[in-house]
Amino acid sequence: MAQQERGVRTRRAILEAAAVAFAEHGYTAATVADILRTAGVTKGAMYFHFDSKEALARGVLEVQTEQVLPEQEIKLQEVVDVAMAMTHRLVHEPLLRAGTRLSADPVAARRHRGGAWPLWGDLLTEFLTEAHERGETLAHVVPREVAELVVGALNGVHLYSQLETGLSDVEARVSTLLRHLLLSIARPAVLACLDVAPDRGARVVREVARMPASA
Amino acid sequence: MAQQERGVRTRRAILEAAAVAFAEHGYTAATVADILRTAGVTKGAMYFHFDSKEALARGVLEVQTEQVLPEQEIKLQEVVDVAMAMTHRLVHEPLLRAGTRLSADPVAARRHRGGAWPLWGDLLTEFLTEAHERGETLAHVVPREVAELVVGALNGVHLYSQLETGLSDVEARVSTLLRHLLLSIARPAVLACLDVAPDRGARVVREVARMPASA
Repeated sequence: MAQQERGVRTRRAILEAAAVAFAEHGYTAATVADILRTAGVTKGAMYFHFDSKEALARGVLEVQTEQVLPEQEIKLQEVVDVAMAMTHRLVHEPLLRAGTRLSADPVAARRHRGGAWPLWGDLLTEFLTEAHERGETLAHVVPREVAELVVGALNGVHLYSQLETGLSDVEARVSTLLRHLLLSIARPAVLACLDVAPDRGARVVREVARMPASA
Repeated sequence: MAQQERGVRTRRAILEAAAVAFAEHGYTAATVADILRTAGVTKGAMYFHFDSKEALARGVLEVQTEQVLPEQEIKLQEVVDVAMAMTHRLVHEPLLRAGTRLSADPVAARRHRGGAWPLWGDLLTEFLTEAHERGETLAHVVPREVAELVVGALNGVHLYSQLETGLSDVEARVSTLLRHLLLSIARPAVLACLDVAPDRGARVVREVARMPASA
């Protein structure tokens, strides 16, 4: 058990070192040697968890969608929560920032079929399909189309904020994006009940931290 | 005069070679030697136009905002036209694709203060401010906020389409984005007059090609 915990911590340390290297040098220029040095682990320890730079990139990308958020009475609130929690974590977790960068890196994206974006697209399509079936959305909404639109626009706003202000205003920018987009997605009665405040992500992430861990 | 034309052509050839190298290898890994080989020019010829890899990147970025589009009766149509013409050119001009990539590249963006995005942000803020003064927009619209939102979301949708379908559906995706966003930007009477069809960009670009060149 202690050994298993140590394994989890080592795996995380390697992923965080990879994230730093990818963010600093870009995917192509980052080397496994850099990553080993930053993580302070041996080559053998790294290859036990990840057998290539590609596997490291895949690991960094998968961190983005592994967090499960609390269910909400309105399904569209869960769409908002996914976007806002991801945005909040982006500010505080270098691992998530690296994933965003990797998804926009031409070489990494070719090797990993669009990075994390298709994973987000599938997740939001599922939520929007359920919202649509429950009658929360306007008649013209096509769930897959809107899901991919939200993922694209959200990542674009993340990149813009990262470049312009180092993410210091990213939660306000995403709140603005969602307020605008939801006007063309949600029925008015649903719209009035949604919480799209800039600090929504922080509150959802705190709630997750208080949830009992599942088996 | 013939010499001047030759200079313009050489400059363009160098920029296109740089665009290919940046798109293929990323900004950091691309080398000046690669660019010279692809362009088929001497080091001296290149340094006459661009004195560093940074200057080449700046040149690639500036191509994005140098095209002037026809004026329209409704100012918001010009906002749509900028987005749709840019999107159409992205499919057909490798130079523009490279600029989009550079703007999202962490190393290039740090060196060029956000790549081409601030240039687009300023241009759209100007158009949206005029649209707002003319009463074309809804009361809650803040021109700078909406302009940066549109630039971020537009670039995000470009990247998503580039990764997922190699840009084959990018004009349809941007048309969807604008239809959604405009519902929260334009007054209903203006909204009904806007042309946001997927082929709008192609038509605007053809119109520019027919315009008499200015002095």
